[in-house]
Amino acid sequence: MTLAERPAGVGISVPRLEDDALVRGKGRFLDDITLPGLLHAAFLRSPEAHGHIRSIDVAEAEALPGVHRVLRYEDLRPLLTMDRIPVAMPSGALKFDVDPFVLARDEVCHVGEPIALILAESRHVAEDAAELIMVDIDPLPAVVDPRDGLAPDAPQARLDCPDNLVARTSAAYGDIDAAFADAPVRFAERFHLHKGGGNSIEPRGVVARWDPMEERLTVWNSTQMPHRAKRLLVTTLGLTERQVRVVPPDVGGGFGPKFVFHPEELAIAAAAKLTGLPVKWAEDRYESFIATVQERDQFWSMEVAADADGRLRGLRGTLVHDHGAYTPYGVALPYNSATNLLGPYVLPAYALDISLCLTNKVPTTPTRGAGRPQGTFIMERILDLIAERLGLARDEVRRRNLIAAERLPFRTGLKTRDGGEMTYDSGDYAECQRRALAAADWNGFPERRAAARREGRFLGIGLANYVEGTGRGPFESASVTIGPSGEVVVTTGACGQGQGTVTMLAQLTGAALGIAPAKVRVIAGDTDASPLGLGAFASRQAVTAGSAVHLAAGKVRDKILAVASDWLEVAAEDLELIDGRVSLRGAPEVGRSIADIAAALSGSPGFSLPKGAEPGLSAAADFQPDAITYCNGTHVAEAEVDPFTGVVRLTRYVVVHDCGRLINPRMVDGQIIGGVVHGIGSALYEWMRYDATGQPLTCTYSDYLLATADVVPRVEVHHMESPTPLNPLGVKGAGESGTIAAPAVVASAVEDALRPLGVAIRDLPMTPDRLVRLARQARAAA
Amino acid sequence: MTLAERPAGVGISVPRLEDDALVRGKGRFLDDITLPGLLHAAFLRSPEAHGHIRSIDVAEAEALPGVHRVLRYEDLRPLLTMDRIPVAMPSGALKFDVDPFVLARDEVCHVGEPIALILAESRHVAEDAAELIMVDIDPLPAVVDPRDGLAPDAPQARLDCPDNLVARTSAAYGDIDAAFADAPVRFAERFHLHKGGGNSIEPRGVVARWDPMEERLTVWNSTQMPHRAKRLLVTTLGLTERQVRVVPPDVGGGFGPKFVFHPEELAIAAAAKLTGLPVKWAEDRYESFIATVQERDQFWSMEVAADADGRLRGLRGTLVHDHGAYTPYGVALPYNSATNLLGPYVLPAYALDISLCLTNKVPTTPTRGAGRPQGTFIMERILDLIAERLGLARDEVRRRNLIAAERLPFRTGLKTRDGGEMTYDSGDYAECQRRALAAADWNGFPERRAAARREGRFLGIGLANYVEGTGRGPFESASVTIGPSGEVVVTTGACGQGQGTVTMLAQLTGAALGIAPAKVRVIAGDTDASPLGLGAFASRQAVTAGSAVHLAAGKVRDKILAVASDWLEVAAEDLELIDGRVSLRGAPEVGRSIADIAAALSGSPGFSLPKGAEPGLSAAADFQPDAITYCNGTHVAEAEVDPFTGVVRLTRYVVVHDCGRLINPRMVDGQIIGGVVHGIGSALYEWMRYDATGQPLTCTYSDYLLATADVVPRVEVHHMESPTPLNPLGVKGAGESGTIAAPAVVASAVEDALRPLGVAIRDLPMTPDRLVRLARQARAAA
Repeated sequence: MTLAERPAGVGISVPRLEDDALVRGKGRFLDDITLPGLLHAAFLRSPEAHGHIRSIDVAEAEALPGVHRVLRYEDLRPLLTMDRIPVAMPSGALKFDVDPFVLARDEVCHVGEPIALILAESRHVAEDAAELIMVDIDPLPAVVDPRDGLAPDAPQARLDCPDNLVARTSAAYGDIDAAFADAPVRFAERFHLHKGGGNSIEPRGVVARWDPMEERLTVWNSTQMPHRAKRLLVTTLGLTERQVRVVPPDVGGGFGPKFVFHPEELAIAAAAKLTGLPVKWAEDRYESFIATVQERDQFWSMEVAADADGRLRGLRGTLVHDHGAYTPYGVALPYNSATNLLGPYVLPAYALDISLCLTNKVPTTPTRGAGRPQGTFIMERILDLIAERLGLARDEVRRRNLIAAERLPFRTGLKTRDGGEMTYDSGDYAECQRRALAAADWNGFPERRAAARREGRFLGIGLANYVEGTGRGPFESASVTIGPSGEVVVTTGACGQGQGTVTMLAQLTGAALGIAPAKVRVIAGDTDASPLGLGAFASRQAVTAGSAVHLAAGKVRDKILAVASDWLEVAAEDLELIDGRVSLRGAPEVGRSIADIAAALSGSPGFSLPKGAEPGLSAAADFQPDAITYCNGTHVAEAEVDPFTGVVRLTRYVVVHDCGRLINPRMVDGQIIGGVVHGIGSALYEWMRYDATGQPLTCTYSDYLLATADVVPRVEVHHMESPTPLNPLGVKGAGESGTIAAPAVVASAVEDALRPLGVAIRDLPMTPDRLVRLARQARAAA
Repeated sequence: MTLAERPAGVGISVPRLEDDALVRGKGRFLDDITLPGLLHAAFLRSPEAHGHIRSIDVAEAEALPGVHRVLRYEDLRPLLTMDRIPVAMPSGALKFDVDPFVLARDEVCHVGEPIALILAESRHVAEDAAELIMVDIDPLPAVVDPRDGLAPDAPQARLDCPDNLVARTSAAYGDIDAAFADAPVRFAERFHLHKGGGNSIEPRGVVARWDPMEERLTVWNSTQMPHRAKRLLVTTLGLTERQVRVVPPDVGGGFGPKFVFHPEELAIAAAAKLTGLPVKWAEDRYESFIATVQERDQFWSMEVAADADGRLRGLRGTLVHDHGAYTPYGVALPYNSATNLLGPYVLPAYALDISLCLTNKVPTTPTRGAGRPQGTFIMERILDLIAERLGLARDEVRRRNLIAAERLPFRTGLKTRDGGEMTYDSGDYAECQRRALAAADWNGFPERRAAARREGRFLGIGLANYVEGTGRGPFESASVTIGPSGEVVVTTGACGQGQGTVTMLAQLTGAALGIAPAKVRVIAGDTDASPLGLGAFASRQAVTAGSAVHLAAGKVRDKILAVASDWLEVAAEDLELIDGRVSLRGAPEVGRSIADIAAALSGSPGFSLPKGAEPGLSAAADFQPDAITYCNGTHVAEAEVDPFTGVVRLTRYVVVHDCGRLINPRMVDGQIIGGVVHGIGSALYEWMRYDATGQPLTCTYSDYLLATADVVPRVEVHHMESPTPLNPLGVKGAGESGTIAAPAVVASAVEDALRPLGVAIRDLPMTPDRLVRLARQARAAA
């Protein structure tokens, strides 16, 4: 595929179809769902980070007027086929499974773990009842810092687990000893990546209804993974696939945590089945802080070997990863951190030893970026350190290490989970950096810095490169169907969390079938509409669902042309599809409506279908990517830092991004900018803190700060388009990309700004108090 | 395919899976459905055969406590996209469309036509309210006998129609004038086939629910044609395909009338959408007599040309067909009568002129046999008449006219609707007759007759041959899916009315996949489970759905073997499927569960599918028959007739039937025997009568008699199996077959019994009073 060959529908900034309803308040989010007889749920949650449950007395709570029932583990257990909720992503690296129970059985392992479920006529009655439940818990010692958890005398984070070290694994290739043996440049550094969350504007939530007549469970779930949720409900409730439907309503942000099937999702479904009444639970913000999965902490200890000209020879070290109390995601998160560290650079040898430690905090699973910002942060910090040691410009050190365009496809040396080799498919990393530096006027920065210094202001600039493996399989499903009503319906296992999935798929379909995208009805993630599907993760939907829809719509187009060609006695090549009709090119009166063709293909009793046609104006396609496609980008940021208040103000932010073909450039811009904002928050503001006993300290947005509009700079986004050969659209994922380089580039810029003061950035977030302390320490050391 | 090559699952009398629930009273028929807030419906129906509605006053009815609402035409019209309900089977032969309204607009055209719909808290309140509606109708002259309706001075059966002659068409081929020109045998006769109904044990019924949240209509409908019902609801209510689901619950008999989409089906759905409340209507038996479509009358006037040896040269004549008041079925019914008349005989020339006359009675549409018993009756009567004229044995006349086996496939000369030629595909008609005569001891009959005469009893014997075009297209859909739960689910557009469709499909699936049929879940006719489908008509489901399921299950089997072969490193040929596992032949421990394979093919996020596999352990197939496959058979019956009381007692009934391969012989026996009973009823008992003003006279089972157990002989069924090459199973339809020859053979036997008295049978039914009168007339004429 050459750059000029753009598949139909690719490259057009169709206005988002989702927005009309959303901006008018006509969206239907989980909490908008009401059903006759609906019960409202609240959870009683553990106040202890670790403890043994002696008893739970629900009598007083159940006596409260308006309370329907209070359910404990033993009430729900008879409905379940198994004791624990299976891990979402199994991994051979786990030494033992540490899956959660539907409600705590006898041990609580983090503050916020659900203990009891109250069903009542309203949420407020349910919450009042929760306070009337008498739970007697024996506190147990908690593991909070994973480094402590790996010490020989550490307390057990889970009494039912043999060890806090739930997995030890590695990422390695090349001859690391040789790389270090005679390296002219060698040094070691430690880094800490802090705990933070997904913080979607809509927290989690579930409505479940059991239909006794059809013996069927319908679950509306604010999830990224309806098909996974269905599968787990089928498995745990002992139902069959046809008995469970999971539907995602409008979802107000996913960002990773809604990938995970949490205990509440099973508990609400089981409660609906048990009571025969519909049940709603809508997570509140406090619950979101204490009960929804989060990401990190990670403690990295790295050794660097480089040549005298700044070229990397090898990296080795250890990563201690805080796993939290359960294992919903296996080892995916530190695996991503470890592998994404490589970035767009030539790294001849690599050896990272990874330890996953159980702690008494919510499980750590991917949020947007999914571990990659951490890996990128480490690599980019190291490159800055090499530049500093060798007195080289930071851009030049990177230039020397970047993989040259002519070496792509580039095999990194790392094995993938499937036994293949992690291979970058397309791109031009040096050109990407060149364009970013040009767009940000990198060369003009010294003058800007000097001018600022004359005014007493500290300006810094930073840059960071990254790659992101996107479009993970194994597949995504799609079908395109036109019925006799003329409505074009697209179904897919993919599902939107606000990123514009519906628009993207409608756009591709509309282009193939000659109709306005607004006339395409996309049903995304409804397990009844799409029996197979994966969902939203790994920046995959444009790649997988986009390709599947593209293929399916093309087949439908071919069907239309074949029938019309026969009916109209005109060659298919001479026909065109416009606005629901197929007609002779240039003679719209010689044509038929597509609805007529759909009606003919639906069949009339006893009459034949059009000659040679298969029944139904419909086609399905499941796109299975052969390999992961890697997008890449360069971020350049300028920051002004006040060393006396520690306040960072980002004054410029440039992204050059290459995710192959752009389907809807404006939506990609939105993804990138949103990601950057998330990354800036992670770099400067967000920090989920716990005290030494495992009590969370930052459970409101007064304590846990997000990057808000007043601190986010205008993000300037430029695109390169290096189409991937790995799918028919030539697209790569973009959903998480903006997040990945942001912490690294902000750190680089802040350090650069404070370089005159000798401040070195090794840990995130760079909160004002920390920066002030670092500046003081540097002054004291000087 | 040779006789020895029996596809998997074919030829086994698996016990019916349906029966366990049904005999325990655990079936769920339409009237078993209850929903919260359900409204119960009754219809106010026209008391006049023809009239103009001046006014409908519902005030008093709506004031009755418990009444929710009374709906008239003008209340429902705003919900509809069109004024009338479109014809089920369009036909170019119709001069004008005479489709019904959802409720009578301003003209009522038959007694029983729905005028108003009452929604109330219970059926009895609704019926009480119906009596409070004041309808002012101006009576108009009615057309009752279609022969009268075609007279120049006939009143108009419908004021909105230009003519009572709604269609005039013909069935013809060969040189009919030449055939008659010098024929040694020529004579003319008139025949009358009477009006009768389907009389399923469960009358019609509908429950409809509108879901305001999903904007979706669910309709439970005791129908043969859920997909057709869906399509008509989509069209008439202005919805799209995804907004309508039609589900057939257990259906207690179809027999043709439930093919037709009646006005009530739309009215109930529209009422549910209008009110937002679920609505149920369950037809009662009286309604079934006056409002459900029926079959016939037909008046035939035929001329016969034959050779001196009894060989047919040609048939010509006219058929006046009573069409009733509306056109739900086009011209299919008289078309079937006209074409099936040919039977298994060589008929060199044929010319039938067919007139369809509107009358003020319920529409006439196919019941079991669908017009074919009439055609067969005419031909078999004519052959008996030839035998009588030439002094030949009746079996010998037939033998001389039968198409020889070596002439098959045999092109009859008649064009089909699709432009092809009506062609008999396989069979051995002479052998079939031979076997039937042998089984019935035809040659021993004279002795039995003589013995009876000595006791003063009148015994007769008759025989009749027939063919039936079965397995009409355009296609039937099927899918076979195994999910990670291990459940095997078959979906199909076919649907059962009691004939064992579920068992038949489960049997074929189970055989292909090595599991017990009872473990296969068949979802038949649910439009959500099967987006495409046709339904139950034309003895088609074994042919079309059976073949589709056979093909789909075979594909699933292949998928299982491919994955297992790869996993177990064993050739697929060495594997076998037993009870949900695939394992090395003879070494069951070397194997995997099929559920494991299903789980692997469902996909886990980020992990690859088994090598080379497509997602999902599922396959779909739509079987499109290339042509109609013709089953055939011979019936022989012995009857004792009391000429003084007119009572007929059938003393022997033998069927030799050839529907190709038998999937489930016992179920085929059930179909044949049921059909014979229906045919006996039609021959001797059933008769829907009207007075001269169009008032129905036989609206209870005291007036309208069915063939009950005390009058039905043991029916002895023998099978031949001439596999058709037209589908992979080699099967032909059997559902209607038993009905087709029964009236002819009973007439032949009764006439034979009364031959000493000179009675000739030309009309049906042969009720006692008619036989007594015929005997008296014959005596008077003698």
